[in-house]
Amino acid sequence: MNELKFLNRLVASLEKFPGVGKKTATRFAFHIVEKFSEEDVKAFIDALVSTKDKVKHCQTCHVLTEQDECEICQSPVRDHSQIMVVKDTKDVLSIEKSKQYNGLYHVLSGLISPLEGIGPDDINLDSLAKRAEDPVVKEIIIATSFTPAGETTALYIDKIVSRQGLSVTKIGYGLPAGGDIEYADELTLRRALEARKKI
Amino acid sequence: MNELKFLNRLVASLEKFPGVGKKTATRFAFHIVEKFSEEDVKAFIDALVSTKDKVKHCQTCHVLTEQDECEICQSPVRDHSQIMVVKDTKDVLSIEKSKQYNGLYHVLSGLISPLEGIGPDDINLDSLAKRAEDPVVKEIIIATSFTPAGETTALYIDKIVSRQGLSVTKIGYGLPAGGDIEYADELTLRRALEARKKI
Repeated sequence: MNELKFLNRLVASLEKFPGVGKKTATRFAFHIVEKFSEEDVKAFIDALVSTKDKVKHCQTCHVLTEQDECEICQSPVRDHSQIMVVKDTKDVLSIEKSKQYNGLYHVLSGLISPLEGIGPDDINLDSLAKRAEDPVVKEIIIATSFTPAGETTALYIDKIVSRQGLSVTKIGYGLPAGGDIEYADELTLRRALEARKKI
Repeated sequence: MNELKFLNRLVASLEKFPGVGKKTATRFAFHIVEKFSEEDVKAFIDALVSTKDKVKHCQTCHVLTEQDECEICQSPVRDHSQIMVVKDTKDVLSIEKSKQYNGLYHVLSGLISPLEGIGPDDINLDSLAKRAEDPVVKEIIIATSFTPAGETTALYIDKIVSRQGLSVTKIGYGLPAGGDIEYADELTLRRALEARKKI
């Protein structure tokens, strides 16, 4: 019964999804074969191609966007004196959903983690240091997770962005230890924002 | 931040996967954008297209196959006197993996379930009744799950396939109540097969 070579190739691709093993990938593949209409498959492929083609990182804050510079960075109604530093785009989406923040963002695309071989040069820190030099910016809010990597990154950022008139704060109260921003509910995020303090 | 229209289309497609909600679909979509290489995406799309194109139901037993008739139905070394009736192709894969069975299969593609509006005409029962008329067939082994739908289907099959010289059995011992064949381990499947009994 090793005859399903096309299906097995589909399973192999689906196994590359995060947290998906052979069993789940097989379930997905069967679902695609038996339940997806021709139009479903066509829409899926179109979305894959155009997403890979159009989605890129904002040239300013590195969030995923379909323009050269994202809507948030371009927005005149956002508070350009605040920059919140987060690990990735998912964190931006979570914070935007909570509607508790009206400043700008800076997406690191990772956290400093010597154990995983990720150093300061591997994440978007240079561009953050440059943005922090702009006198318009009054506050850098560090919203990395309460993990060793998140704490290390926060301390590093505090070192590289300090200048007269710029306060560096860190969201604090509310975010559970070891917790990822992505999974925090709105109330937790509001508390964490309200209770931010100087590093 | 509703600007990611291509990404959102990809999320919408991924949400059609079984057991995948918006959060998981979003995670998958970000993973594809950030971790899939051009080749990964190309291989994925190729696999999607060719799977949809080549994978179909065996004309005899209805298992998913990439030929007109599956390898099992065509095999001269399999025991053509036994037909095991299962709900879907995943069940066939599980039983094949257990290496405890050498007969043929019949895939119903569903179970009779009045509550879900699935009647006897909606699953592959006509073709089973026809196959059962062949005097080569000596035993029909019903391997539907221990659920109301599985039991109803088993009783219905017993009614439509009975003839002189044909025994209709049902796998029994070992399969936990409410359990799906797909999740049964090899030992459980062996016990269930050994302890099959006449309905």
